[in-house]
Amino acid sequence: MAEQSRYLLNDDQVPTSWYNIVPDLPAPPPPPLHPATHQPIGPDDLAPLFPMDLILQEVSQDRYVPIPDEVRDVYLLWRATPLHRAHRLERALGTPARIYYKYEGTSPAGSHKPNTAVPQAYYNAKAGIRRLTTETGAGQWGTALSFAAAQYGIDCEIWQVRASYDQKPYRRAMMEAFGGTVHPSPSDVTEYGRKMLAEDPTNPGSLGIAITEAVEVAAQDPDSRYALGSVLNHVLMHQTVIGEEALLQMAMAGDVPDVIIGCTGGGSNFAGLTFPFLREKLAGTMDPEIRAVEPASCPTLTKGTYAYDFGDTGGMTPLVKMHTLGHDFIPDPIHAGGLRYHGMAPLISHIYELGLITAESRLQRECFAAGVQFARTEGVVPGPEPTHALASTVDEALRCKETGEEKVILTALSGHGMLDMAAYDAYFAGELVDHEFSDELMAEALTRLPQLDL
Amino acid sequence: MAEQSRYLLNDDQVPTSWYNIVPDLPAPPPPPLHPATHQPIGPDDLAPLFPMDLILQEVSQDRYVPIPDEVRDVYLLWRATPLHRAHRLERALGTPARIYYKYEGTSPAGSHKPNTAVPQAYYNAKAGIRRLTTETGAGQWGTALSFAAAQYGIDCEIWQVRASYDQKPYRRAMMEAFGGTVHPSPSDVTEYGRKMLAEDPTNPGSLGIAITEAVEVAAQDPDSRYALGSVLNHVLMHQTVIGEEALLQMAMAGDVPDVIIGCTGGGSNFAGLTFPFLREKLAGTMDPEIRAVEPASCPTLTKGTYAYDFGDTGGMTPLVKMHTLGHDFIPDPIHAGGLRYHGMAPLISHIYELGLITAESRLQRECFAAGVQFARTEGVVPGPEPTHALASTVDEALRCKETGEEKVILTALSGHGMLDMAAYDAYFAGELVDHEFSDELMAEALTRLPQLDL
Repeated sequence: MAEQSRYLLNDDQVPTSWYNIVPDLPAPPPPPLHPATHQPIGPDDLAPLFPMDLILQEVSQDRYVPIPDEVRDVYLLWRATPLHRAHRLERALGTPARIYYKYEGTSPAGSHKPNTAVPQAYYNAKAGIRRLTTETGAGQWGTALSFAAAQYGIDCEIWQVRASYDQKPYRRAMMEAFGGTVHPSPSDVTEYGRKMLAEDPTNPGSLGIAITEAVEVAAQDPDSRYALGSVLNHVLMHQTVIGEEALLQMAMAGDVPDVIIGCTGGGSNFAGLTFPFLREKLAGTMDPEIRAVEPASCPTLTKGTYAYDFGDTGGMTPLVKMHTLGHDFIPDPIHAGGLRYHGMAPLISHIYELGLITAESRLQRECFAAGVQFARTEGVVPGPEPTHALASTVDEALRCKETGEEKVILTALSGHGMLDMAAYDAYFAGELVDHEFSDELMAEALTRLPQLDL
Repeated sequence: MAEQSRYLLNDDQVPTSWYNIVPDLPAPPPPPLHPATHQPIGPDDLAPLFPMDLILQEVSQDRYVPIPDEVRDVYLLWRATPLHRAHRLERALGTPARIYYKYEGTSPAGSHKPNTAVPQAYYNAKAGIRRLTTETGAGQWGTALSFAAAQYGIDCEIWQVRASYDQKPYRRAMMEAFGGTVHPSPSDVTEYGRKMLAEDPTNPGSLGIAITEAVEVAAQDPDSRYALGSVLNHVLMHQTVIGEEALLQMAMAGDVPDVIIGCTGGGSNFAGLTFPFLREKLAGTMDPEIRAVEPASCPTLTKGTYAYDFGDTGGMTPLVKMHTLGHDFIPDPIHAGGLRYHGMAPLISHIYELGLITAESRLQRECFAAGVQFARTEGVVPGPEPTHALASTVDEALRCKETGEEKVILTALSGHGMLDMAAYDAYFAGELVDHEFSDELMAEALTRLPQLDL
């Protein structure tokens, strides 16, 4: 009998609730502030952007929020996702470590993003909203929201960061296949986009700019709302289905993780896998190291400042306390488009400050090298984003080889890279450059942070 | 409790044997003939191209052939694949039919092709072969063989039909990610390729030409062998893991199929799903209609002649009796590259002649329309090839809507279309043209078939 390599769950084991980590934390996260008054915002301040169900989730103190049947029915198209034991990677590395990966690439978008796109589209449709606007980087989020909007019969309009729009034409086609409309950002259909293009017609865009454009359109149309693919509390909470499933699956495998490793851009994939394990850690039932891995070119946790800043580049969003490189920072065009965000989710930033997780940064070429090794052994070409977690996983496994430790490593394989092959192509052609964020850039950004009189 | 939408199997339910339909057929299939002598070929004639284990499988009379552990271990990276009930598509169509799809898109290549690539690479490596050569159309097969070769430490060199090479650049990158080497076909690295290019430097290629190139290289190097992704008996047999799993999964669902629908190019995906059901049909335990759907531009079963012909364009392969459009037929460049083959698997041709299956052809635009409807309801953007089966499935479900019949339809979703988004793009842009094969073309092809004195 072959070694078991996949741990699957039945439909009835798919979670029926999302997990909200906020009430379990030893200290509450700092509140978001109104961009003009600098006072804590209330639900009404967010009403032009989000439906009330999502606003209430954003500020919820309930540990568990039930997943509506209409959402869970759609989840069941691809959930539960598989947990794999990476036997073949382990053997290639010659490590005594046991490596597991939770794979979200079997979803409609090929990543974890539909886990929150579906409930967001559902709650908006339920509130009578007719159109969702959003931004997308690598295109994963835009694809997910296009798919989700189609499930509930509402429209979806997407501003895609120009650099990714040009690098990944198949992503646009896929958003259109699901029924979405796509603009390169900066675009000429918003005031802010036109302003950016007037300053620099070749602006490669950034998530911050694309957010401003999508927010501008939603704020001006009472039938439209905005949807964000990461960063916010309710988004992170929706993603906890990943970790809840993984807890059951690790138990099936009879192993308890010593290290849990995920990549972080906005932070939702990382939170999704790790928050349920962090609950267990806080309860004392296990004690894994929980490690965030970010790109060296956009290292919010390891190099950023923990301060109140805008979520977007145009300064239209509330001020949130987070690790930031400055809201006007435009990262180098690394190929892991999903990790090109100037800030980190406030909740993850807070948890990092509490000392509950660790963080490190990685250069992109070592990440692609790990991705190729993973593809050739495990048969999945990973998205550029999770290759950051894989690079850290490989190093951890090689350390175990030296020390002889049989560590159990659990890593978040947030999506496949089939629509990112142009990036692999550039890697094989030796065209990728390792960009590193500098202390000088940070010092400069500090001078432009909003000045609060708190 | 939500309706069940996925039927999963555990690792120990993944088949341990392949099913060989030949001994169960009411009449034996006609033998392949030597291209020069026109006499039935023996195992030795095939030895320059294939390792003996595969040759013996090609002519096997055993009903079941055990799957080696080294192959099954790799299968377990993604098998068993899920069987889905298409609740959301059914509701969109308003049909009383119950639609199931067996989804092979979760494999390393995103299609059913690794099911045979893995054993082919294994048996070659076991025989001491160092390099596999092959052709690929859409790129699915080349991706699968690159991945498979990497599992057993051997090289893989691929000739990709020029039309697909140009339409699908991500596929080449993916073959390279798994370690393969890719040439556009016709290429300047083979004698036959150079001849083709001399006649027409803009030759878009065909599977027949690419096969000739790959066979030429393998035949000249004692350390190399050739691998074929469809058509041959052993390839069809390897694919029966699909149908064996689907039999178990349909039983879990408590339904027996009335109609089973698959697309046919070379025929391996169709055979893989249907042969185990055909075994049951021949044994009298069920009586489904088994339907092959082919492109109207390359309709081998519905318009081709049943005759001995070459498998390749250059006339290097044995002569096999099959439905053929003529070995020098170059199909219009439809976007379902995997269905652009001038012949049909001899075993499927034989079974069609025995009246055990039905066949129909479809124009490509109606196929893409069905593909988009499927994507928006079920969340999988299908490959252009299985959209042919989906178009037929949708029509069958709509017929049931008219008659009120609660038919059980099982369809083969052989792969996703994430690497075929350029084709969807062309469809949305209104650039796709419906090509239809003509009787005149067939009459002309008949004059060029090899003349046998039997």
